[in-house]
Amino acid sequence: MNNVVVVSDVGPDESAVADLRHAGVATVHEALERNGLMEPYLRPIFPGSRIAGRAVTVLTPPGDNLMLHAAVEQCRPGDIVVVATKSFSTDGMFGELLAIAAQVRGVVGIVIDAGVRDLAELRAMNFPAWSRAVSAQGTVKGTPGSVNIPIVIGGVSVQPGDAIVADDDGVVVVPRGLVKETAVAATARLEYESRLRDALLDGRSSMELLGLRAILSSLGVSYLTPTNGEPPLSER
Amino acid sequence: MNNVVVVSDVGPDESAVADLRHAGVATVHEALERNGLMEPYLRPIFPGSRIAGRAVTVLTPPGDNLMLHAAVEQCRPGDIVVVATKSFSTDGMFGELLAIAAQVRGVVGIVIDAGVRDLAELRAMNFPAWSRAVSAQGTVKGTPGSVNIPIVIGGVSVQPGDAIVADDDGVVVVPRGLVKETAVAATARLEYESRLRDALLDGRSSMELLGLRAILSSLGVSYLTPTNGEPPLSER
Amino acid sequence: MNNVVVVSDVGPDESAVADLRHAGVATVHEALERNGLMEPYLRPIFPGSRIAGRAVTVLTPPGDNLMLHAAVEQCRPGDIVVVATKSFSTDGMFGELLAIAAQVRGVVGIVIDAGVRDLAELRAMNFPAWSRAVSAQGTVKGTPGSVNIPIVIGGVSVQPGDAIVADDDGVVVVPRGLVKETAVAATARLEYESRLRDALLDGRSSMELLGLRAILSSLGVSYLTPTNGEPPLSER
Amino acid sequence: MNNVVVVSDVGPDESAVADLRHAGVATVHEALERNGLMEPYLRPIFPGSRIAGRAVTVLTPPGDNLMLHAAVEQCRPGDIVVVATKSFSTDGMFGELLAIAAQVRGVVGIVIDAGVRDLAELRAMNFPAWSRAVSAQGTVKGTPGSVNIPIVIGGVSVQPGDAIVADDDGVVVVPRGLVKETAVAATARLEYESRLRDALLDGRSSMELLGLRAILSSLGVSYLTPTNGEPPLSER
Amino acid sequence: MNNVVVVSDVGPDESAVADLRHAGVATVHEALERNGLMEPYLRPIFPGSRIAGRAVTVLTPPGDNLMLHAAVEQCRPGDIVVVATKSFSTDGMFGELLAIAAQVRGVVGIVIDAGVRDLAELRAMNFPAWSRAVSAQGTVKGTPGSVNIPIVIGGVSVQPGDAIVADDDGVVVVPRGLVKETAVAATARLEYESRLRDALLDGRSSMELLGLRAILSSLGVSYLTPTNGEPPLSER
Amino acid sequence: MNNVVVVSDVGPDESAVADLRHAGVATVHEALERNGLMEPYLRPIFPGSRIAGRAVTVLTPPGDNLMLHAAVEQCRPGDIVVVATKSFSTDGMFGELLAIAAQVRGVVGIVIDAGVRDLAELRAMNFPAWSRAVSAQGTVKGTPGSVNIPIVIGGVSVQPGDAIVADDDGVVVVPRGLVKETAVAATARLEYESRLRDALLDGRSSMELLGLRAILSSLGVSYLTPTNGEPPLSER
Repeated sequence: MNNVVVVSDVGPDESAVADLRHAGVATVHEALERNGLMEPYLRPIFPGSRIAGRAVTVLTPPGDNLMLHAAVEQCRPGDIVVVATKSFSTDGMFGELLAIAAQVRGVVGIVIDAGVRDLAELRAMNFPAWSRAVSAQGTVKGTPGSVNIPIVIGGVSVQPGDAIVADDDGVVVVPRGLVKETAVAATARLEYESRLRDALLDGRSSMELLGLRAILSSLGVSYLTPTNGEPPLSER
Repeated sequence: MNNVVVVSDVGPDESAVADLRHAGVATVHEALERNGLMEPYLRPIFPGSRIAGRAVTVLTPPGDNLMLHAAVEQCRPGDIVVVATKSFSTDGMFGELLAIAAQVRGVVGIVIDAGVRDLAELRAMNFPAWSRAVSAQGTVKGTPGSVNIPIVIGGVSVQPGDAIVADDDGVVVVPRGLVKETAVAATARLEYESRLRDALLDGRSSMELLGLRAILSSLGVSYLTPTNGEPPLSER
Repeated sequence: MNNVVVVSDVGPDESAVADLRHAGVATVHEALERNGLMEPYLRPIFPGSRIAGRAVTVLTPPGDNLMLHAAVEQCRPGDIVVVATKSFSTDGMFGELLAIAAQVRGVVGIVIDAGVRDLAELRAMNFPAWSRAVSAQGTVKGTPGSVNIPIVIGGVSVQPGDAIVADDDGVVVVPRGLVKETAVAATARLEYESRLRDALLDGRSSMELLGLRAILSSLGVSYLTPTNGEPPLSER
Repeated sequence: MNNVVVVSDVGPDESAVADLRHAGVATVHEALERNGLMEPYLRPIFPGSRIAGRAVTVLTPPGDNLMLHAAVEQCRPGDIVVVATKSFSTDGMFGELLAIAAQVRGVVGIVIDAGVRDLAELRAMNFPAWSRAVSAQGTVKGTPGSVNIPIVIGGVSVQPGDAIVADDDGVVVVPRGLVKETAVAATARLEYESRLRDALLDGRSSMELLGLRAILSSLGVSYLTPTNGEPPLSER
Repeated sequence: MNNVVVVSDVGPDESAVADLRHAGVATVHEALERNGLMEPYLRPIFPGSRIAGRAVTVLTPPGDNLMLHAAVEQCRPGDIVVVATKSFSTDGMFGELLAIAAQVRGVVGIVIDAGVRDLAELRAMNFPAWSRAVSAQGTVKGTPGSVNIPIVIGGVSVQPGDAIVADDDGVVVVPRGLVKETAVAATARLEYESRLRDALLDGRSSMELLGLRAILSSLGVSYLTPTNGEPPLSER
Repeated sequence: MNNVVVVSDVGPDESAVADLRHAGVATVHEALERNGLMEPYLRPIFPGSRIAGRAVTVLTPPGDNLMLHAAVEQCRPGDIVVVATKSFSTDGMFGELLAIAAQVRGVVGIVIDAGVRDLAELRAMNFPAWSRAVSAQGTVKGTPGSVNIPIVIGGVSVQPGDAIVADDDGVVVVPRGLVKETAVAATARLEYESRLRDALLDGRSSMELLGLRAILSSLGVSYLTPTNGEPPLSER
């Protein structure tokens, strides 16, 4: 368990990643059989972004952003930096200068289980971040960590080279070995959702379209129309 | 306490609801003698909306959105779906497809003690939601609950047919039997606030306008002008 | 420890405060040797503001905004009202009318360890607030507190007459006696950051620019290039 | 909605309440078809108590314990004081002196959505409390509230005269009209649990006793015995 | 703002500190006119302790306990170590070995805005701690901080040499200059509480003893005895 | 990713597990180079336990304890059930009956990222649990999950067959492949700590014993003895 920076070009299929990005987090999470979603405390620092890319992972002590610099140097165009901390922290480990360094290399965003700062500048650069907090709290550059090792963040594990999808709904990780089939499933689901959307816009009930009336009935849920039109007071 | 979908057309007076919407949450809460406000963890998923309407209530197990489909089918134009869960959950129980189904029926928004997903799509549709969380976490359709029964959400109880007002300040519920008098009180308060606003813009002090100087004095608060201009250091 | 409203014109150097505002929270916090930052739970009610000014402090019981009225009356152009509560509260102690009273006097914003309401109106007025919560919960005007005494808010102490800087990154307090030297240090740091920004945009690595490669090496972090291109599975 | 102290002797059947106490919170909650449980943030201030009794309800502004004194005066032997606040508070509204006043009248405990103080003294008196917090924060006696009106606490509504059961597992409310049938159901459940306990102690599997093997199979869960004895690595 | 260990023998009057300890946190907080109480997230790691002593303060970066060692060396019998961190942390900065070092020097306990570990050992040693968390998370000894400078912890400021009182109700700080008069006031309050206790045990109502009936009446709270004995349903 | 119950006898070396138990969580975490510790929100339901054993893992939907029954059936003496949920939940998924079933099979405890109920009974049985919450909230037995697959809980990943150590300080996981060497390192550390303890009890300073004086000096921390004995007021 020595600290190490792993140099690796391995990543998910780029065309499949583009499909994942097109599908968005909610659809990809469904296509992955409802797995891979990070916990909802990781929120975008500004609304309206949707990105997908290869995960370059970082494990760092709290209050120190040395390893983020080392990670950015390992990035290639289309990558997403994914940062876990060894213990809880909201310190502002990522800001404008690291974002410039990352954007110059083609990095499309960051997911970080800590704080981000320079919000106005990141928004102006259109460099999106998903984080636990916004905080100007400065950090040092003096404690070691690792780059491109397996990490746990937001309740899921991420391997370097996995695909990450992030938008206003949150962040989902797709294991590298499942990226292609997940992209296919997500695209199929988009088509299904499109048909459903059209049917709903035509005024059809989702109860019928999804066959829910039978389920409701089988669960013993009954319909009740009060004679006086008033909903009954509960015994409560 | 069997699970039931209550079919009911009962609701608050529409004209009074329009007045409540015009007044907004903070003023309605004051007009209701500072009652009815849901706890502030229920936040809008995007800023700038203000809605009012009849509450169609849902009580559902966590992680299941079957009953939301049943509830939407019970809605008529101007309604607001209000969803409580049987235990704590942040799962994304409501998203684009349910929002389309709801909007087609004229539903103006949702208040939900759980998560919402498809944020970008809901914003594009201008379908507002007030929720505990944003989360893409998918749910099943397999456990029963009820529609249009009394629920507790955000620390207040809501009866089906009550009026709901929601904006950037939060969510307030007005009991159906109090809607008309609350609308009248809210409109009166708007007028009072308008006069106060004008006086303040004229440069008058709120201390005088509100008669606070006497209160301050009666409470023993004194004014102190340090001789050297420096605020005294506290003994702390 | 009687309740008191201290009348005082003492404040930080105005030109230095303008420099602090120009630098922003993150840079000022660094210039202050990473001190003075309030905890990140204090968030702006809408994005995009950056203010700096003299602190007029308030210590108030929860659920009562009487002392905010007294504080606003003590303000002069360029001031920022900074409000601590005697115990935890999210009540909406500050809203449109107080904001009008404040803005008429030239107050540029508020920092409050409680709730704010009338969000839409404050945004329309462009009156920024940093708060613990947004809540319409009304308050009374019946319990005493103090104005312009030392307070603790967000984990830092604030003296009346200190300088406050607030933007999307949070809120930092600069002790009055340190405002000039901090402004100088912040301006120097802006220049340093500008040079670094240019070098990064030229494609140079932050590892080199900041001399981090030697640090990494001295900490025993090694680079590893897997022969098969695959990042090694952890023993985990 | 004027503030009022309702004087009422109405309460649940005493013998049924004794049965509820004997059954405990978890069993009563099950007997009530999994309703009525307060959210788990309400915790006992010391372990090992189990009480049941008639609810005397209080709705009070935060930071003020005037109405608790009024409530205690309305209590009779076997009662439980149940306190909701108009907005969030952790102030120490209840302590030794109120506990003595309550215990003298035969009150068996308190459930309070705020703070409690004098922990050592309450433990020594064996006066149990379920609260949101422990805090020495003092309160005033100057703002009105109500006694014996319907309240919402811990996500459930409580009517004066309902039965309350509280132990180390939490707090459950049983509507007055359901107390007798719930006590019967709880007693039956105790017997069922007793038989199940004996069977488990005999070494029988809960999978068989509860008929879970068929459910597992119908849900498509399969058993897998790796040929090498090693659990397979997930694709994750 | 250089990092420094201040060597100082200054402290509060020992006899007065003994009186504060005798009175306990809630009474001292009242005697201090309801000031000085730390926020209730600081909890004892085991119940039943009550200590008072001179504050030896520490300001430390998160994840590093170097300065705690330096602080313990500055302690004399009767002292309490009070630790603030520069940013949020739950790391286990204090454990058995530091506790032994402290206890050998006569330190009576610690208050720390971070984590504590070796709980079983601290309990066996009867060395009490009030902390934000219990966590085994290890820390380093490599970043500087300060000892015996003013700090902010739990929402209050503490000067080295102030008196600290801590028990099951929380932690309160008494400024050194106020220790004697606070001890006198606390002792007087104990006597008052003793008389009140006796009167309550005699069965007298706190409403009468504290003169609350007149307050209730002046606030417009009325008593209502329903003719049918039933508490009225709220309009809710 | 089908749901599966993996049948496996693979586990860590029993003698090494006994050593880990003897060392306790804090020491094992250090021996594991400060890895493997679960986040501190997982707390014991009663104090004073220390267990170690083989992990039998469970991944379950929230609000359903079907898979816990399946997991217990897979347990052998010395095992610890470790339960992750697919999304956030505090429901009381584990109680007395499951505990009996587990204890009969020799299971020594449970670690669960949800709620536990029947606290009094578990304490009486001396069956320890580490959980996110205590809650009586009942659950169903109707949704599938898996047993003995890799899971993430408390911010770390756990493989079936890993070793778990849990005590009052929290929970740590030791990968199966590292159990022997970690046990050796933990035992060595115990000896080191024992020598340190003795030296401290002899009155030696930890500053000297750990060589911290040189570190402090190299970090530029200076000692300051005020001439008047008073600690200097900060510029703050």
